[in-house]
Formats: sequence, structure tokens, C-alpha cells
Amino acid sequence: MPTYTAPVRDTRFVLENVLDLPALAGTPGFEDFDADMIAPILEEAGKFFAEVVAPTNLPSDRQGCTRNPDGTVTCPDGLKDVYDRVREAGWLTLSLPLKHGGQGMPGVLGMAVEEYFTSANMAFAMTSGLTAGAVEAIMARGSEEMQALYVPKMISGEWSGTMNLTEPHAGTDLGLLRTRAEPNGDGSFAITGSKIFISSGEHDLTENIIHLVLARTPDAPKGTKGISMFVVPKFIPDADGNPGERNSFSCGSIEEKMGIHANPTCSMNYEGATGWLVGDENKGLAAMFIMMNAARLWVGLQGLSQAENAYQNGAAYALDRRQGRSLTGAKDPSESADLLVVHPDVRRMLMDGRAWTEGMRALALWTCMQIDIAEGSDDEAARQKADDMVQLLTPVVKGIGTDIGSNVANDMQQVWGGHGYIEENGMAQFVRDARITRIYEGANGVQAMDLVGRKLPMHGGRAIQALFAEVDADVEKASGDERLAEIATALGKANGELKAASMWLMQNGPANPNNVGSAAYFYMEMLGLVSIGWMWLRSAVAAAKALDEGAEDAAFMEAKLLTAKHFALGLLPDAGALRRKLQAGADTIMAMPADSFLRAG
Amino acid sequence: MPTYTAPVRDTRFVLENVLDLPALAGTPGFEDFDADMIAPILEEAGKFFAEVVAPTNLPSDRQGCTRNPDGTVTCPDGLKDVYDRVREAGWLTLSLPLKHGGQGMPGVLGMAVEEYFTSANMAFAMTSGLTAGAVEAIMARGSEEMQALYVPKMISGEWSGTMNLTEPHAGTDLGLLRTRAEPNGDGSFAITGSKIFISSGEHDLTENIIHLVLARTPDAPKGTKGISMFVVPKFIPDADGNPGERNSFSCGSIEEKMGIHANPTCSMNYEGATGWLVGDENKGLAAMFIMMNAARLWVGLQGLSQAENAYQNGAAYALDRRQGRSLTGAKDPSESADLLVVHPDVRRMLMDGRAWTEGMRALALWTCMQIDIAEGSDDEAARQKADDMVQLLTPVVKGIGTDIGSNVANDMQQVWGGHGYIEENGMAQFVRDARITRIYEGANGVQAMDLVGRKLPMHGGRAIQALFAEVDADVEKASGDERLAEIATALGKANGELKAASMWLMQNGPANPNNVGSAAYFYMEMLGLVSIGWMWLRSAVAAAKALDEGAEDAAFMEAKLLTAKHFALGLLPDAGALRRKLQAGADTIMAMPADSFLRAG
Repeated sequence: MPTYTAPVRDTRFVLENVLDLPALAGTPGFEDFDADMIAPILEEAGKFFAEVVAPTNLPSDRQGCTRNPDGTVTCPDGLKDVYDRVREAGWLTLSLPLKHGGQGMPGVLGMAVEEYFTSANMAFAMTSGLTAGAVEAIMARGSEEMQALYVPKMISGEWSGTMNLTEPHAGTDLGLLRTRAEPNGDGSFAITGSKIFISSGEHDLTENIIHLVLARTPDAPKGTKGISMFVVPKFIPDADGNPGERNSFSCGSIEEKMGIHANPTCSMNYEGATGWLVGDENKGLAAMFIMMNAARLWVGLQGLSQAENAYQNGAAYALDRRQGRSLTGAKDPSESADLLVVHPDVRRMLMDGRAWTEGMRALALWTCMQIDIAEGSDDEAARQKADDMVQLLTPVVKGIGTDIGSNVANDMQQVWGGHGYIEENGMAQFVRDARITRIYEGANGVQAMDLVGRKLPMHGGRAIQALFAEVDADVEKASGDERLAEIATALGKANGELKAASMWLMQNGPANPNNVGSAAYFYMEMLGLVSIGWMWLRSAVAAAKALDEGAEDAAFMEAKLLTAKHFALGLLPDAGALRRKLQAGADTIMAMPADSFLRAG
Repeated sequence: MPTYTAPVRDTRFVLENVLDLPALAGTPGFEDFDADMIAPILEEAGKFFAEVVAPTNLPSDRQGCTRNPDGTVTCPDGLKDVYDRVREAGWLTLSLPLKHGGQGMPGVLGMAVEEYFTSANMAFAMTSGLTAGAVEAIMARGSEEMQALYVPKMISGEWSGTMNLTEPHAGTDLGLLRTRAEPNGDGSFAITGSKIFISSGEHDLTENIIHLVLARTPDAPKGTKGISMFVVPKFIPDADGNPGERNSFSCGSIEEKMGIHANPTCSMNYEGATGWLVGDENKGLAAMFIMMNAARLWVGLQGLSQAENAYQNGAAYALDRRQGRSLTGAKDPSESADLLVVHPDVRRMLMDGRAWTEGMRALALWTCMQIDIAEGSDDEAARQKADDMVQLLTPVVKGIGTDIGSNVANDMQQVWGGHGYIEENGMAQFVRDARITRIYEGANGVQAMDLVGRKLPMHGGRAIQALFAEVDADVEKASGDERLAEIATALGKANGELKAASMWLMQNGPANPNNVGSAAYFYMEMLGLVSIGWMWLRSAVAAAKALDEGAEDAAFMEAKLLTAKHFALGLLPDAGALRRKLQAGADTIMAMPADSFLRAG
């Protein structure tokens, strides 16, 4: 049985030592946000999710969800009670707006806590996570009346929300969707069509489920310009706002999936279901992107959460299991064998796991803080700069965060050897659960295209240029400190590779758009390396400073310096190879006739 | 439901065009081995495994094995019948010795066919694969009488065999094992102890199961020098060699695993079971390595088999599923969307999949052919050279072959998007099944240590020096042909990186063995890249030659040239980054105090 401890010390280091909290405190509404306020909240959240939620992870995966003959879905034993405890403890509303019953904290704190929830049970945490996205869309596009009707009960967690995008023939390509919405004449619409892969589409955790459904009105233009968003509640709220009449749709089946078994993935059949337009007709895709943007960071965080949990269990095993002897002579001669942690190849995997996980945590939280600034700062230049970074890094946090989730989970399973392949030990679940994060909310290849095709050229490349400059400035500043010089040099070199790759794209993209497509994933990986490497340089600077100031937890700070150095020497060198592969261009891969891909017998 | 076509055309290309068949035909016993003999066997095998076995893969994974209350184990529906058909068709005996009832073909042909079997249903193919390993150990170390008693029925597949190594506390470190063997006074021993992770330890496919069990005799030295091997049949053969008395051991449980559900992974309880010594007392580990060496190539082939099957289904989906439009304008304007295969990032994954899979097939078969030469040639120099290559490349075929299996399966699952995460589509199974191959038969980190710690320094580095020279010679020869020059240049550069890494190891290993440990995995990956790159250069040379000679299947040969170029430009550049990471050495990763790996709350 795996164990989980919320990495509160590490979250605090990121928030208190690496991020620029005073800058956030300068944002109206967050004046009181400082280390003294953060620490007890993180401590309490960490304790709660580790003790109350984490023990449900393995059993709820083994049991899975059940669709009953009447079309209702029953979640694994105990989850309903635990859901109520999460809700009642107030963990769902930390960073939601005060005016709707939230607690008004910065989003960065909400995300820090969400990581603990998601590590504790990712499949279970999805229901409230998706609800938060639905709330954002309704708040952004719904009428005042609609907001008043749905938002408070969704924020409180009494009701949950979903996104209904995918149809059997329309996944990434939403322009293909066919679900119809016919006006009923009373301001409502009759929604008819089939949706698939609807996470938390039907379940027994909440008294009502509010679906946001993409559909086409009768005369809508073809493609993505003819999509509208509708709110389609399972039970239509009555005059008092309580769940009333059952709406005309149902869950036709739940999928048997590789992982996230504790979350029901539903096919939904809408048969003239009553729905109301959210925002303007034919502007549904833009409305859906409001939830998808927030959701992309959250999915990146899911990757991080699985990496963290897997890392913890990999490290614990390496310090418990005895096999073989150290290459430099027995370390524990009185024992039958040394601990796994004496073996360099095991340590390499553990160091990689730490370096990716802690670096990714810093990047994810830094990006969330930029949202807080972009949305709340009263300084226009600060807002713009922060928003540029959010736009640029959102696909990176999603794509790289989830690749890290899969890679670290696989490495930590490897540390466990054969025992890692046995389901009761929990390592396989991290691999299986993390795997979906690379696919949903826009497959990582789609994130890469969003980055390279849309985000990079925005405002003439303003965002990436700003990032290059900030990285170079930090490299320059750190180069004089001998504890930091190697780290700074490696990051400077990787940043140089990224600049070269950017230049290649500028020179080779316009003539052949396929060069943009073939380069996209490599570019995303490079930007992931550089931005996480940047967070590591900042972390190393902060750790060195803390040591200079006589930090109480010197071992923690020394470990930060060592892990930063490992990221620099052991992971950043990939930037060069990625640049070379990117520069191979599209010619060879596009030259193969399509039929030649099929295997002849 | 996934589909499978045996890649007969590609196997034939490797055997007929890339490998040096005339050299093999010079080996006594294989004089008739040529293209005319190979083709019909491969065709028939391909048809059989695709039609008879492949349809069992998905359903047998979904159903899994059942342990009955009496300790017997029932395999998924239909597998017993299919097993009998495989056996009766003679597919298990192709390359086994004539004198024991085999068909006496070269091992390389047996392996080529084994790939089809393993692609068709890896979990199911394990039972006969393990039997083949057990047969090898008994033939190498067992008495004439023991061979006569067991080998013919194991070769025919009437009986199966297993390896019993692992105990709960003794995985990689076999020196820790505790199972006892007490002499009964009649030449037999009473075996007592618990073994875990025993693949095919108990099942209903064969009338008898012959376990090879590692155990300690009463006065055995500690550690690996005190291990003996015993043959412990489920039913003790009677005077006529038929299954007689039930032996005193049982399957206590079967594991719930991430994958290979159609193979029962058993915990075995030996309670004074009757066994007979195989070979000399205390020499059990050496005997077990006979099976393990053969098994390592076979596990590498398992990785290949899952990569191949996943690739086929990824490619088929990319040529069937329509999402989005080509970046250079609609390719099928009359359709609602273009095929996935128009997208460069999808093609990149497909090209990677082809390049790894076909290159790995060439390397695996080339290595198998070296065994045929090493064991059968009447030219001592040829035998030695071939044996050097087998020694050097066995851990590489296992380590890299299985990494390729996991990586390609994951990429092809990604091509399928959300549908790849749904179990009924079969892509998840490839990922889950392939995952174990990186762990068992010596985890890949252990393979890397075997390579760098034992194989590389053998005979003063004779094997790796021979490989460097052969690669350089092929690079030199190919450089003049403009179709091959880019491929040759890239391979030459990667070979240079590998030489530099070898030099670094020679200079930095002796002073600190941990540098060998931290470098091992990177070195294995580099040698994998170079040796597969070498096979690609040879494949490209062969394809260019075939085109010059007016090959009938020009499209096949052109695809070979393109895929070789993709390997050169799109994958070989990793060699440089691997060399840099290798040269980071062990200092940083060994500097972290062990306790600092544990996450503080």
C-alpha cells in the first residue's frame, strides 16, 4: 500500500522563497497574503488530504465505478462521505470569489492545495476540479440570473459541473460536432445528440450535475464558428433553486479505462434535453476555452501530483528495500544487503524524479501566480507581462507537466522492480492514472501546436523574448556565485539552444508550415527544460541565500542546491539534442507516402 | 479491437537483404538455409499467428487467469485449444535440435517466428518461451537420463517449464535466497521454501509443469556461491515417463498485475517437494544463467513484438481517423476532415515507431544469427567474433528492445488519443504488457550494469572495439553514395560520441566505481542507438542496392531509405546529449544524504 505525505515544506519553499510574494501582495485584495498566512493553511490541507483522502486512492481504483441498470452511477465505497468532508472543510472554495461564497484567496494558493488533493486521489479530485472550470465559464459568460442560479451551489460543491465536448467522430476537431440545439420558444433549447468521454458525467457524489454542452443551433455556420454552449442541468432547478424535474438525458455507459477508475467516464445521450444558452450563440468555443485554459494548468498539475506521489513511494522503497551491495564496498555490512539507494542507477532515477517534480511545482505555481497578477494587478504593465507569460506557458505546463507525470511514475515503478508491477503496491496505478493526463484537455501534441503556432508568434514574439531576457538576466546575476555558476552556465546554454530553435522556426516555418508542425513537440520540450531550469536557478539562488542567512533547515537547502545541479548537468543537456532533431525539419517525415505506413504482410 | 498482420515482408528483408545469409549457410547443418527455404515458413507462420492466436489477445487480457480453490489455475477461455494448435502445427520446435525431436533450423529463424507468436499474444506465448529456456538449461547441465526423461516432452510442448528464482526478499539479489534442499538419501532432495513471481507456475495448458528451482543445500556457502538448481516436476514421471505422483508443492496465489493478465504469475510454496540436482551442487547460478541469457534476447524480442503490434494499430488508426486539416491546406476537401496522418506530429510518432521497430528487428535477428554462428561455425575466428558480439549485445537487446517496446506502445496509444485509453481498443494493453519487459529477466538498470561492468571490459574491450571498427568501415563505404551519405555521417558522429563515452568510462571508472554505475544506463542507450543505427545503415545500403537492381517492390525499398534517414536525423542526435549526461558522473547524485530523499511533510 503506497503512502503519501503532502510536500508542505517544498510548497512553502516555492511560495515563500522562490516566488515573488511581495509582488502578489501588491495586488488589490491580496494585501494580507504572506508566509504567515500561507503556512497554517498548507499544513492543515496537507494533513487533511494525506489522512482523509489518500487512503481511498488504491481501493477506489481497484473497485471502480458501477453503472446501474437505471443509468445511475455509483462511485467506489466511501467516496461520497469523503467528498462531503472535503466540501465541508472548505477546501473547494479557497481561491474562489468572495461574492459567490468563496474564500477569496489567490489562485496560486488554491492550486498548491489542489496538488495535494490530486496526489491523494486524482480520479476522485476530478469531479470538483471540473466543477471549478464550469463555474469559471458560467461566471464569465452566463447571465446574472444564470450565475445566481448555479454558481453558489457549484462553488459550495453541493452541485458538480462537467464539460461535454467530445463526440465519437469529433475529438480534437470540435468543428465536426453534430449535437443539435433547437429553440423551444421559451428561451430554452432542446438538446439532442451523443457525447462521449464525459468525466463525472453521472455519479452519486452530488445532488445535481450541471453539464456545459457544446451544440449547434439550427442555422449555425459549419465548423467551429457554429458552436454554442448550453447549460444542461441533470435536475432542472425549481423556483426556489432546488433540484426539480429530471432532464431528458442519461448516461448510456461508462468506459473501461486503463486508469482513473474512480472517475466515471460516461457516454451521454441527450434526447431533447432542456438547456439554456451560455453567452452568445455561435460563441461556444470561446466560452469553452475559458474552462479549457484553466483546466490545462490543472491537468499539468495532475501530472505533477502523480509524479510527486510516485516519487515519494519510489524514494521510500529505495530506503527500505535491500538488494545487492554498493559498488564501493558494503555500506551496511551487518545487514544481508545494502539499501537500493546505494546504487547509482537507482539514485539517478530518484534525482531525476526530484528534479522534475520540484522544478515543475515551481513552474506551475509561478504560472498560477502570474494569473493572479494578470487578473488582479492595478499596474497595467505588470498585468500585460504576467498575461504574456500565462499565455506562453499554459500549453507548456500542461504538456510538460503531464509528460513528467508519466515519466516519473514509470521510473519510480522501475525502482520497485517486479513489485512495482503488482497492483496492490500502487506504483502501477500512478502510471495508469498519469497516462490520461497526456491525452485529455488537448493531447500534448495539440498543446505543442498551440504553443508554436499561436502563442509563440503572439505580439511579434513578445512573450518568448521577455522570457529569454529574464533567463539571461538571472544567469548573468548568478554566474559570480561559485555554488550557482555551473547551474547558471548550463541554463544559459540551454537558453541559447532555445533561441536558436526559435530562429530556425522563424526562418523555416513560413515557407513550409509542416516545419512548424514537426518542430512543435521538440520546441515544447525545450521550453519546458528552459523554464523549469530557470525555476531551478531561482530555487538555487533562494537556497544559497537561505544558507547564507543561517537557515534552520540547512539540509533541505543543501538538497535544493544538489537537485538544481542535477537538473543542470543531468537533464538540461537534452536541449542540444532536441534542437538538432527540431532542425531536421519536416521533409523526411512528410515524404513517406501514407500507404507505406501500413504494414504489408 | 486491434488487428495484427505478421510483418513477413520486413522479416524477409532483414534475413535476405541485411543479414549475411551465406555466412550462416557456411555453418554445418545450415547448408540449405536460404531465401527459398525461409519465405514459405515465414508466410505460413505469419498467417497462423495472425489468424489463430492474435484474436485471443484482447479477450484473454480482459478475462485473466483464475486460481481455483484447489490451487489449480485456469487460463482464459480457449487458450488451451489454441496452445494445442500451436504445438501440433510444430511452431514450438523450429530451431530445436533434431536429436530431441526438434526441426534443426537456425535459431534466427525460430526467433523470427517467435516474434509473431509474441506479437499475437505475449502473455500466452510466455509459457512455451520459458519452456524453451528450461530445456536449454537441462540440455546443458542435466544428466543424459534427466535429458531423456524431460526434454522430448518439453520440446514437444506436452510439458512446460519454468524458472523459480525470486523470493519475497530476493529479487535482483539472488544471493539472498533461502529455499532449502535437503538430501533424501536416494539421490533426490526435499525442497522447501517460497518463490514469488513465477510466470506460468501453475496452469492448465499442459499435462505436466517442470520447475527449475534455485535452492541451497544444507552446508552450502552463503551468497550466490551456495545456490544449486533442481528440477522439480509437478507430477513426478513414472517408470514409463508418464506423469505420476503429484509433488509436494502448490500455487498459493496469483498476482493481480498491471498487464500480462493471460499469464498466471504464481507464488509457489514448496513443502518438502521432491527435486533432483541439475548439474553440480552450488553451481546453480551458472546453470540458471544459461536460461537467463537466452531469455534476455527473448525478452528484448517481447519488447519488439509489442512495439510492432502497437505500431501497426497506430498507423492503421492514423490512416482511418479524420480530425483537423493539413497545415498546408485540406488534403481531402470532399471529406469533413483530413486523416490524422497529414499532421506532422502524428507522422513524427509513426516514423519513430517504424524506425525503432524495424531497426530493432534487424538488431535482434542479427544478434540471434551471431549465436548460430558462435555455436555452429567450424571457423574458430568466426565463432569467437560472433560470440563477442552476442555477449556485448545481449544486455542491449534486452534493455533497449524493451524500452522501445514501452516507448513505441505509449506513442501509438497517444496517436489514438482518448480512444487509446479505452481498454476495448487494445492500445492500453500494449502499454501494460510491454511495461513488464523492462523489469523482468533483470531490470534494465541491471542489464546496463552487466553491459558496462562485465561485457565492455571483457578481453580488454575486444568486442566494443570490433564493433566500432565495423561501424566505421560501413560508414566509410557508404559515404560516397548520395542516398546514404547523410545517414552515414550521422552514424559516424554517434559512433564518435560512443567512443568518447567509452574513453570517459576508462578514465573515470577505475577511480570511482560509482561513475560506472551512474554512466551505465546512458551507455546502454548510446550503444542501442549506434547498433540500431548501424543496422539502419546496412538496411539503407541493402535498399539502395535493391533499387539499383530494379527491385519489384520499389515502394518498400524507398520507405526503408526514408526511415533510415529519419533514424539518422530524428533519433541519432540523442547520442550527444547522452554522452554529456554520462559525463556528468556520479558526484552530484551520490552527494545527496539518503534521508534527504524522503519527503518532509
